[in-house]
Amino acid sequence: MYKQIKQEAFEANMQLPKLGLVLFTFGNVSAADRNLGVFAIKPSGVPYEELTPEKMVIVDFDGKTVEGNLRPSSDTQTHAVLYKHWEKIGGIVHTHSTYATSWAQSQRDIPIYGTTHADHTTADIPCAPPMNDEMIKGDYEYETGFQIMNCFKEKDLDYKEVEMVLVGNHAPFTWGKDAAKAVYNSAVLEAVAQMAYLTEIVNPSSPRLKDALIKKHYERKHGANSYYGQ
Amino acid sequence: MYKQIKQEAFEANMQLPKLGLVLFTFGNVSAADRNLGVFAIKPSGVPYEELTPEKMVIVDFDGKTVEGNLRPSSDTQTHAVLYKHWEKIGGIVHTHSTYATSWAQSQRDIPIYGTTHADHTTADIPCAPPMNDEMIKGDYEYETGFQIMNCFKEKDLDYKEVEMVLVGNHAPFTWGKDAAKAVYNSAVLEAVAQMAYLTEIVNPSSPRLKDALIKKHYERKHGANSYYGQ
Amino acid sequence: MYKQIKQEAFEANMQLPKLGLVLFTFGNVSAADRNLGVFAIKPSGVPYEELTPEKMVIVDFDGKTVEGNLRPSSDTQTHAVLYKHWEKIGGIVHTHSTYATSWAQSQRDIPIYGTTHADHTTADIPCAPPMNDEMIKGDYEYETGFQIMNCFKEKDLDYKEVEMVLVGNHAPFTWGKDAAKAVYNSAVLEAVAQMAYLTEIVNPSSPRLKDALIKKHYERKHGANSYYGQ
Amino acid sequence: MYKQIKQEAFEANMQLPKLGLVLFTFGNVSAADRNLGVFAIKPSGVPYEELTPEKMVIVDFDGKTVEGNLRPSSDTQTHAVLYKHWEKIGGIVHTHSTYATSWAQSQRDIPIYGTTHADHTTADIPCAPPMNDEMIKGDYEYETGFQIMNCFKEKDLDYKEVEMVLVGNHAPFTWGKDAAKAVYNSAVLEAVAQMAYLTEIVNPSSPRLKDALIKKHYERKHGANSYYGQ
Repeated sequence: MYKQIKQEAFEANMQLPKLGLVLFTFGNVSAADRNLGVFAIKPSGVPYEELTPEKMVIVDFDGKTVEGNLRPSSDTQTHAVLYKHWEKIGGIVHTHSTYATSWAQSQRDIPIYGTTHADHTTADIPCAPPMNDEMIKGDYEYETGFQIMNCFKEKDLDYKEVEMVLVGNHAPFTWGKDAAKAVYNSAVLEAVAQMAYLTEIVNPSSPRLKDALIKKHYERKHGANSYYGQ
Repeated sequence: MYKQIKQEAFEANMQLPKLGLVLFTFGNVSAADRNLGVFAIKPSGVPYEELTPEKMVIVDFDGKTVEGNLRPSSDTQTHAVLYKHWEKIGGIVHTHSTYATSWAQSQRDIPIYGTTHADHTTADIPCAPPMNDEMIKGDYEYETGFQIMNCFKEKDLDYKEVEMVLVGNHAPFTWGKDAAKAVYNSAVLEAVAQMAYLTEIVNPSSPRLKDALIKKHYERKHGANSYYGQ
Repeated sequence: MYKQIKQEAFEANMQLPKLGLVLFTFGNVSAADRNLGVFAIKPSGVPYEELTPEKMVIVDFDGKTVEGNLRPSSDTQTHAVLYKHWEKIGGIVHTHSTYATSWAQSQRDIPIYGTTHADHTTADIPCAPPMNDEMIKGDYEYETGFQIMNCFKEKDLDYKEVEMVLVGNHAPFTWGKDAAKAVYNSAVLEAVAQMAYLTEIVNPSSPRLKDALIKKHYERKHGANSYYGQ
Repeated sequence: MYKQIKQEAFEANMQLPKLGLVLFTFGNVSAADRNLGVFAIKPSGVPYEELTPEKMVIVDFDGKTVEGNLRPSSDTQTHAVLYKHWEKIGGIVHTHSTYATSWAQSQRDIPIYGTTHADHTTADIPCAPPMNDEMIKGDYEYETGFQIMNCFKEKDLDYKEVEMVLVGNHAPFTWGKDAAKAVYNSAVLEAVAQMAYLTEIVNPSSPRLKDALIKKHYERKHGANSYYGQ
């Protein structure tokens, strides 16, 4: 029954080390089946070289394990909250990739400095502030999901337009229509984070991308008459 | 009829991931046939691992597709403009390589700090300013070609001497007598961009290369009595 | 008799080049057998590609060679001192990995900036000050072990909670319940060191991780009800 | 007659791309035979993947080609001068490796910040100033050799103790008792250059290594009672 999302989650997880986005098990990917109301996610602490599709754990959108002998990733509750409230997403990725995590640790949004960024989103990549102590002491991973959603509400962002976020002091989450797109977004985020870092060093007063260019690059990829593709 | 440039464009495109110059499909190479007045270019959005010589698209110097079932790269109009006006070039490369793109985002020319740079060009590597809003709203990729050519005119540069440019807020373009040389120039540009970045950090008052050395290094490679080769 | 720790030390040593933590022979791993009161360590100056389990040297906790034709690593006395006084550790690693060594050279503790750090230890990663001239002129590698232990005493740190240290002007040492865990800690230290470096550049006033988060992340991994695993 | 040095030069040249020290043909190695008074050097401009031992060019210490159909590397005169005047060296390497070249471009000596550096030399790694215009216009590569030797004289350095130099605005040269040792020194220099760069960013007032440590680390490797080896 869950064979397809297990396979999808497995393949997407295996992309993380290949793309240089994880050290050891510092990351996880899930793939959702909207009809069945569940997602397949990496089991907790299992090294990538020992992963198989069969080891993926099936969890519902309330974070309850539905199938699987292994414990799901400790970030499972965050995935569940996002799937439950953001109904158009089919895959979620969490990593501690080097540059994106460093921006998260610095608690800054990533400014939009160029067209590589604009090809994927028109906004600065948001950094959600660290949670208050109440939330941290409570159901921490569950609250992380709400922290992300609150950040999008406060900044008036649409999760379908901006498919990535930094969680302050922690690390990035990305998502997309499926797990493969979410992984793609993780790699793009890491590249954008590295180039924004370098740009500010080369020229500390580098200006944000001008509005006309932001609009143009976004529309040629996502607009009604989209034609983008390198 | 177009077999040779398709093969040439294919091989040159495949060098980009091998040289670490592209993530996913963030780049493209074209190869021109001056006799036939056309060039072969990467199809739009096709991953490198799925490329074949047959998939290359044949386009004329006005940007019209002549042969091929796939859509040509979204940067095709920029290539076409450059081929049309710069008659000595046989290959063009566009990438979003990390360091060169960061310099483009910072909107600075890359100063000539050493002989690695001087072995390839005597000038600072120019950064064309971002286009005005009129040009952006118009035929954007077509105008990018003119933005590059205007930059060379204003700075009084010769495209045969300086085979690379940064497009402000965007990313680099390079060219050469054929596609392989254009790819070579892309890799050189990335290395020069990284070392200029590091040089300014190690010593913020690093001087530009002295004129006698600029001249010497350039002439030993390109001069009448050239003898360079490491 | 020593077959198991020789194999364990061999495998752990071979992980260092694989994880990008050593150039040439700039590192070594040992694995202890607490029952026999000895440890197996890399022979001195032997390239990794020529290592075999049989070449490992067996040394007791006073630093005397017990078995083996080759000379043990020049850092052997430091390993011996730590095994002798810190009775719960079963493996030790020394490397000159790029980022951790750069922090050691700068003589700064690595501040705890995020959850990647907090998942492994609640403290800033300590940097032991350089030894006084007396100690240096004396039995240098032996004294290095005491320099590390003195640093932990002065900062009131528990070697079972903080399994890594920078030796000022020198490079990192890590340890753990066995050699594999000590190698894991070396790779984690290098990643944490790189991200702390980047974090301070992205935002020079990045705050240390807030106390509630430090506690949460550490407890979910090490506490009585630990459940962590990505 | 020259078979052995051709083989030695070939193998040493092939290490450069393997160790990440060269892009394309931006580097060369030579191996000398002191009895025959010649050295074998990489032919000019030949890509590493096309190198064979037979293609190496044999040159005497006055820079005259003795055997070989290909033109020797354009840096040959620099090698010849160093072999002629520094009689104890058997191999020379020139690269444009990223970090060492950036220090050369910044025209700064690399300060001795740690034991990785001290294990190889007790001095700051010297950066020879750019040549005066007279020398540049003259026999440039020949004069580069004298520029290096003058730098050692002025700083009172011994080429047998300090086996590496930066040529200001240009790039590094290293040497050693044979070509393999010279290549080893090139990789060490690149690592030391990267860590010195990082050290200054982590702590702009990082102190040079204290004298007692410089002496200790050097003597344990090179002194009468040397015992070093990791």
